[in-house]
Formats: sequence, C-alpha cells, structure tokens
Amino acid sequence: MTRETTISEYLIQGLQKAGVDHIFGIPGDYVIKFFSELEKSSIETIGTCSEQGAAFAADAYSRVHGIGALCVTFSVGGLNTVNAVAGAYAEKAPLIVISGAPGVCERNTDYLLHHSVKDLNSQLNIFKEVTVAQCVLDDPQSAPYEIDRVIAACLKHKRPVYIEFPRDMIHSKCLIPPPKTEIISSKSNEIFNEALKEAVEMIKAAKKPVILAGVEIRRYHVENEFLKLLENTGFPYVTNVLGKSVICESHPQYLGVYMGKMGDPEVIKYIEESDCTIILGALMTDTDTGTTQFNISKTIYASSDEFCIKHHYFKDIDLGEFIYRLAQELKADCEQRLKGQLGCSETQFIASNQASEKKENLLIPKTANNSKDAEYIAQSETPMTIKRFFKRLNSFIPEGSPIICDVGDCLFGSATLKIPKDSVYLGPAFYTSMGYAIPATLGVMIKNPELRSLVIVGDGAFQMTGPELSCFVKYNLNPIIFVLNNKGYTTQRYLKDGNYNDIHNWNYHLFPQIVGSGLGIEVKTEGEFEEALQKAENNTESFTIINIHLDKYDKSDTLYRLTSMLGKNVV
Amino acid sequence: MTRETTISEYLIQGLQKAGVDHIFGIPGDYVIKFFSELEKSSIETIGTCSEQGAAFAADAYSRVHGIGALCVTFSVGGLNTVNAVAGAYAEKAPLIVISGAPGVCERNTDYLLHHSVKDLNSQLNIFKEVTVAQCVLDDPQSAPYEIDRVIAACLKHKRPVYIEFPRDMIHSKCLIPPPKTEIISSKSNEIFNEALKEAVEMIKAAKKPVILAGVEIRRYHVENEFLKLLENTGFPYVTNVLGKSVICESHPQYLGVYMGKMGDPEVIKYIEESDCTIILGALMTDTDTGTTQFNISKTIYASSDEFCIKHHYFKDIDLGEFIYRLAQELKADCEQRLKGQLGCSETQFIASNQASEKKENLLIPKTANNSKDAEYIAQSETPMTIKRFFKRLNSFIPEGSPIICDVGDCLFGSATLKIPKDSVYLGPAFYTSMGYAIPATLGVMIKNPELRSLVIVGDGAFQMTGPELSCFVKYNLNPIIFVLNNKGYTTQRYLKDGNYNDIHNWNYHLFPQIVGSGLGIEVKTEGEFEEALQKAENNTESFTIINIHLDKYDKSDTLYRLTSMLGKNVV
Repeated sequence: MTRETTISEYLIQGLQKAGVDHIFGIPGDYVIKFFSELEKSSIETIGTCSEQGAAFAADAYSRVHGIGALCVTFSVGGLNTVNAVAGAYAEKAPLIVISGAPGVCERNTDYLLHHSVKDLNSQLNIFKEVTVAQCVLDDPQSAPYEIDRVIAACLKHKRPVYIEFPRDMIHSKCLIPPPKTEIISSKSNEIFNEALKEAVEMIKAAKKPVILAGVEIRRYHVENEFLKLLENTGFPYVTNVLGKSVICESHPQYLGVYMGKMGDPEVIKYIEESDCTIILGALMTDTDTGTTQFNISKTIYASSDEFCIKHHYFKDIDLGEFIYRLAQELKADCEQRLKGQLGCSETQFIASNQASEKKENLLIPKTANNSKDAEYIAQSETPMTIKRFFKRLNSFIPEGSPIICDVGDCLFGSATLKIPKDSVYLGPAFYTSMGYAIPATLGVMIKNPELRSLVIVGDGAFQMTGPELSCFVKYNLNPIIFVLNNKGYTTQRYLKDGNYNDIHNWNYHLFPQIVGSGLGIEVKTEGEFEEALQKAENNTESFTIINIHLDKYDKSDTLYRLTSMLGKNVV
Repeated sequence: MTRETTISEYLIQGLQKAGVDHIFGIPGDYVIKFFSELEKSSIETIGTCSEQGAAFAADAYSRVHGIGALCVTFSVGGLNTVNAVAGAYAEKAPLIVISGAPGVCERNTDYLLHHSVKDLNSQLNIFKEVTVAQCVLDDPQSAPYEIDRVIAACLKHKRPVYIEFPRDMIHSKCLIPPPKTEIISSKSNEIFNEALKEAVEMIKAAKKPVILAGVEIRRYHVENEFLKLLENTGFPYVTNVLGKSVICESHPQYLGVYMGKMGDPEVIKYIEESDCTIILGALMTDTDTGTTQFNISKTIYASSDEFCIKHHYFKDIDLGEFIYRLAQELKADCEQRLKGQLGCSETQFIASNQASEKKENLLIPKTANNSKDAEYIAQSETPMTIKRFFKRLNSFIPEGSPIICDVGDCLFGSATLKIPKDSVYLGPAFYTSMGYAIPATLGVMIKNPELRSLVIVGDGAFQMTGPELSCFVKYNLNPIIFVLNNKGYTTQRYLKDGNYNDIHNWNYHLFPQIVGSGLGIEVKTEGEFEEALQKAENNTESFTIINIHLDKYDKSDTLYRLTSMLGKNVV
C-alpha cells in the first residue's frame, strides 16, 4: 500500500536511513523552508561560518560515519562548496549536497532572479563535474525515486551526489514508492571466479608478496575481511597516505606508509624487491606514490572502480568479496609458506612482537614504523622544529584520539606519525586542498565529542578556514590545535621561492579572545612545547590552540624528499 | 615583422595593455612558475588569505579600474573562486581568471595527478558556466591568438574569462601575432538609426519621462554621455542598487534608488506615474526591482546585451552611442518642454538647488534623497540602531571615500546613503554573495591607498571572509570597517526564524590583536559611536574596525519592506 508524504519528509527520511544524524550548512532564502523542516526532525543542523567550512565538515563526517550531508542555498551557497565537494569526489567521501533553488513557478519571469549566473541550470551543470549523481526535485511524481537513486549512488560509489530542491516543492505531496527488488546477475559469478583463480595463482607463485592497502578498506567497511587476509597469509603490508591507519597501525605486519621515493627508504626497498604487489582499495595518485610508476607486470590491483591483474582487466569485481575469498583461498598455502619461511631469506627479520598462534613464525622486516623510537627528551632552550614536533607527538597521542592533518608539511610530516589503537587519521592526501583540517575537526567531533581530536595545521591553511574554530565554542568541543607557523607556504619555498610565498603573521594563539573561549599558547622552544602539551591536556573544557613558531625553511624528511622531486617538474 | 616571445611574456603584456597593474592570488605548484614570471614584471602580485578573497578583491578592482585579474593554482585554487567569479559574471565585472594546470606532457600518466577531480577538463567545464570566454594555452602556435581573444571578450562583455595555463608551457616560445584589422558593418548603421528614431519619438510624445540608470553606465565608461543626456533633457533619473552612484548622487535631477516596493515611496510613485521609463544599462533583477514588473509598453530598455522599445527588439545597438545620440536628438525638444513645464503639474516640485543656466527652470520632485535630512543629534545613552547608523553616516562620509557594502541589511540600508562627490559605491546588489566587502576593499584600495574606504559588513558576512583584513596590515591600508553585529542572519529572521539563523558572537574589535596592527572599538550606544567615529578619523595609519552591537531583530526600512515581500514567496 502506498502512503502519502511530502518531498521534504521523504528526503529527510532518506538521509536518516543512510545514517545522517547531523547536517552542515548555512540557510538562505531559497532553502530556508527546508532548514525549518530539518529543525523539526531528529537531524541536527550544524551552522558553520562559511559554506566551504560546512562542506569540509560534512566530508570529514562522512569519512568517519560512512555518510555526510550538507545543505546550502542557491549559487552563493552551493558554488562556495565546489572546491570542497571536488575534494570529496577525488578522495571518495560519500557526501550528499542539498541545495535550495528558485521555485519551479518562479523560473519564467522577465527579470533576473538573485543569485543566478548564466542561467538557472549553471549550478547543476557545475555539480555534474564534481558529483556521481544529480537530481532536481521539480516533480512530485518522480521526486521520491530520484532521492532514492542519488542516495544509493552516493553509498555505492562513496562519492558526492547533488540534490537541487526548488523552494516551492518543499511541502509538495508525493507517494512513498514500493520497495525495490534487487536483480542479481549470474554472469558476475563466472567473472569473479576467473579473476580470483588467477590472482591466487599469481600470489602462490610469488616469492615475496606484499599488500598496499588504501582508503577504500575503510570506505567500504571491509576492515575485517582485510584483517583476516593479513592473518591468513602473514603478508606484510603498507598503506599510502590517504589510506594511513585504515586498520590499527600497531598491527605487527605493518611496514609503514609507502610514498614512493618520498617515503621511508626501508619501505621503498621492500616494495621494489617484491615480485607481487597486491594493491587493495587504493587510488593510485602522484602524491601517494611519489610519482613512482609501479611495475604493472608484478601487481594485482583491486578497487571499487577497477580490477586488473598485470595488464588485463576484469569487470564488476566486488572489493570486499574479493578480499574475503582471497583470505580463504590463500590460507593453506600461506601456512606452508610461513613454516618454510619461503622467500624471506634475503632481508633482515625480527620476530613479531605480538606473536599469536598463527603468527609465531611470522617474520617482518624492520622499518621506521615498527621499530622502537629512541626516547624523546625535550631540550628546553632549543627552538622547535617540525621533525621534533612529530617525534614528540608520537608519544603524546592518546588512544582513540582522531588525528586530523591539513596540507603541506603537516601532511607530509604526519606520514611518520604512529597512529594508536582505535584512532583515526584524516588528511586530504590526494586532493590536498588547504584549509581542510579545522572544519573537518567539527565534522569528526560533532557526533562523538568525547573523542578529543588533535589537529595539525599550517599557518597558510589556518588563514583560509581557521576561524571556523568558532564552531568549537558554539558546539562545546575541545580539540587541541597545533598551528605549525612557518610564516608562509614553505612547501613552495622549495619549488620556487619568491615574495608570493610569504604570508602575514597572525597571533594564532589569541583567537580565544575573538571567539570568547578556548586556551591559546605561544611556543618557540621545546621546553615551552612541553608546558603547552601539559596545559592542553588539562584544558578539557574548551579547545586549545598552540601557535608553534618554526623557521621558514624548516622541513620534515618527507618534505625534503618531495620538494627535491617536485622541483624537477616545476622549476 | 613577427617577433618571438614566450607565452608568459605575451600574457603578461596582454594583461598590462588591458590595464592590469595588480594581480590577486595564491601560488601552488601548478602555477608557481608563472608567479615567478609575474614577479619579474611590473605587475604587482597581491597575496590574500584564500583564493575566494583574491577573487572578490580582483572583482572590486575591476569595478573601479575597468579590468581585474586573478591567478590561482589548479582545482584547489580555481574551484575555490567559482562563487566569486559567478558573482562577477552576474554583475558584469570584467575579470581575467588565470589558473595553472598540469603540464601537457604530464597528462598521459597511469596515476592520478594531485588536485584532479573527474578528469583534467573538470575545471575548464566548470568555468564555462561562469565566464564568457575560455582558453587552454596548450599550443604555442595558437596561444597568443587565444590570449587576445579572451582578453578582448572580457573587455567587450565586461564579464569574467578563463585562461588555463599548463605548467610546462610557461616558458614556451611563441610568435607575436600581426595586428588585427577591425571589420565595421554598414548594416548596423541602419538598425541604429531606426531604433534611435523610434526612441526619440516615443520620448517626445511622453508627458512624464524618467530615466533608470544602471551599472553599465560605469562599466562601459559612458558617464559623460549620460551626464550630457541629463543636461540636455532635464529628465529626472533614478538608479537601481547595483547602479547606485554611477554618477555623482548630488546631481540635482537625481531622485534616489529605485527598488520597487522595497524603496522610497516617492521614487516608486514617480516611476509608476511615468508614461516613459528609459532604462539605460541596468540589469533587470528581482533585488533591484523588488520583484515589481515594469509595464513594458511604457519602457525603452537599452543595455549592452539587449535593446528593446516596448515589446520589440533591435540587435547590435551600442549603449554609449545610443545615449550620446539621444542627448543630441532630444536637446531642442526638451528646452521647449522645460520652458513650458509640460506634464509636471501634478506633483510637488522644488527648484533645483544647483541651478545652472540650462537648469534654472528644471523642476524635480522632492524625495528622501534630494531633500535635506533633519540634523542628526547623537543621544549618548541610546542603543545604536541600523537606521540611526545610516543616518549618522550620511554626514560622516568624506568626499572621495569609496563606500563598500556587504550583503544583508548593510546593502538594503545603504540604499538611502547619500554618496558624496567623487565617491564610488560598491555592493554585490544582485548576486548578493555574503563576504564580499572586506576582500573587495583590498581590491579598491590597493592602487589608490589614499582613498580611504568605508566598509559596512554584517557579522555573518564578516565570519565568512573578514580575516582577509590581514591584508590591510600586509599592504598598509587604512579603511574604516563597520561591523553591524546583530548576532545572526537577521534578514532571514524575517523569512523563517529558527536556531539556524543564530551565529556565535565574535569580538570583532579584537582582530587588531590577531593581525598585529589596527584599531578596534566596541560600540553599543550613540554616544560611543560618536567617539568611535572621531577615533577612526584620527587613526590614519592603520585600519579601524568598529564592532557595533545591534538588536537581533533591528532593521532598516528597506529590510522591513523587503522581508515582508520575500516572506510571501518563502513561508
């Protein structure tokens, strides 16, 4: 039996079913009636300073909770989110963008409607470039089907979708559609079995297999399948930056972050020597691979979009299913392999420090990640450097704390951070849009305010969106923000230096005075940093912002390696 | 004789020829080599906090100087300007957007390039929606012609254009093309004469003609032609908000701003009673006309894009030429008309207060704009209101000071501001994107720092882009910023109130502490406002920011009329 509802109500229910408990955005006259409907629902509306801030927050929310949503007005709202939505597209964050729009009945006037650009479809056309599915809710008959279609596309592709809602349709009546029946193709089984068989054979024949795990392990929630694969095979694994911490980094088979020639030399060596790299759910990007080309003849590449073994492709292979079956198929062979320690004789090994029944014979090479750091002892008068900052942070991060990094050396330096158990790591490692971290923190903490986030942001990025920390006061959140203040765009100083890389210095630690709450601390030396960490830890009632002065040419090892490579392309 | 150059040099020369002395933007690795070339040229590179700030600044620069330019990196830079560029498109600001991009040789790799979205054309496709011409400088042979074509389109249409510059083409050699010969059509003369004749006849037959002047008078630099038309005809004129102050508002024939039912009732009455409204260079927008429909049978509409008399259209009529010839053709008839004071008997008249030989007989109705205000006397303990703010400002604005208004009641309230001689008024009156004013001020002042701007911005808008005031310190500028702090999106409170209209309060007057310079003052009463104005006037060495607390439901007369109308569409 069909039941009547309104388009608003149906959309709100669709959001709720998909897992949206909070929606980020700013109202405007084309969308305010829908805000009013949202306010009546159980979905909480979270207001940011700017629409871009809302979009970054919703993106981060989606990375943590599997779906995020954003609600803005026409053009001046929507077009202000294009960059952030493009980032969600590039890095596969499932985000529902809802934009108000002129009413269907208003569209045939002789005068121009405010906020309009070339024509009333301009915004829709723009969003076609940064979303996987779009709809305009201009017809009560099709609206519920359109809502179902785009939300399903968002969840399937883990990428943004766009819903345009003309303001005179908000209260339009519509019918709830009957439930859909799934069509399962028998063809896909055949393809899957062929692909699996070939992958298994290639892996069995390999002497030194290794896994590169990417962010889709988390996006498609196949962490357990992946853990089983690790357990059954005993293979060592790396992640790329975007996939950092997809599963707990204290896993004994974890070698570290692979960043091509930018990264830990031990990790590079292992990958280069491997005769079978199994890439699972990773986007192959220049920032992640350090522009190193993989030898495709030695790889198995499985992601949600593409599946290929060496140079040939298979269609419609489900990533989670593939990982699950691979774990099953390889189990017996790998037990044999472990017992005989096949193909492991040429590198140095240490026994796993978390030996289990299955893993006692497991031998994993020593890398920067899995060996114990020399203890950090603060030199009280020594000026802070970025290397020492990250070294110190490794022993500061509490279990469970989300780590949110912005772009620049925050991101590169963070590759060596050891993310503790139950913590998530978020950084826009591929799209690399500056200004992500502060609003993203709102998205991470709003549903779980007890998970106190650590935020690492450069001065350039802070000047773009930093004032969104105002939301931490508005919503009672207590993250700890580290501003790595090197007075400019330091990454670029190594590409081509010039005045354009200088930015005006701010007293970032005085922001609590602007927003009326929070603790601000200025740090120049290692001794001051120790004190600041102590104060931050104790200040649980409000956010803390620590302004860390660094030399303008100070850099992490990763940045050093990156800029010496990128420089060749640029200069 | 052709001469060799590089694509960069040719582009820089093209910018210079068009009138660009300053370019706004932020570097990134895809564009940094071009920044380095700019630094070697006489064009000054102006760095802002965010790319959107750069775009608003460049937009304002173009409104004052006839052309503006913006230089950003691929995607994370370019896509962050889409909203601001859309605003420039909507309000006809001639803006050249230059974006770096991956090199032509990099485009065929197996891995994804950082900052890329759907594909490498996504950004180009998006900019097609918000610019009038586009090019990609990927071929040294065509590049100089493409540069000429898009810059010419920018100057002709007074709208943004997009130039994408792959990073490996920056130093590519190219040939300077031979000069172009203009083709003049003889057909257009015939059309023009027919249109002019018909317009003249219609005006001569009218009893009560009135002119509505728009922003194109300034964009196409036809202020002198327009002044001549006023002088020769003696017709009263109004502007819309976007066209406010296209010529000096103390002109004796000026009635005020026409905003349909939102505006001054005397102005509405005059327009409604007119039997011939001559609309010159005005976009017909809903915000400008207050959604009132003109009676097309009584209008002559001339703009750069469209020309129609009553309901029929003419093609290719040049706006400036039309105004110039109209002034000539109407002179004799209007001298007769003035002598006989035809059609003027039904309204109350006052003699022009700036009588010249020609105008001594000129009779103009009394409106809020041209009658003398009752003197403002501050009531020292009385809380500030927005009405009193604008009333006080009318006697504070120094001659020559640019007035820059943001969106909301800043804009609506400012309709009644009397802009003094040689001052310009800037406000995004049609596209109405919040956050315009602060970065726009940078664009207005950078070339003429002696023109101290007055900036009127709401708290909501300030939270979007206000921290760009950092640039006032970086570039030694001394504007006076009035933050109308009503703790939320007040315009929307009258549409549909809810928590989503509340914003977190900031101590806006403490921003000087963040950026290390400037004077901040907090104001609650009229007495405090007097003191603040005095201090601001004396503080010529840095910017001044005055945080004016207002009641959250306080509103100007215009806002009152607007919201009671918009409310009907929304609620």
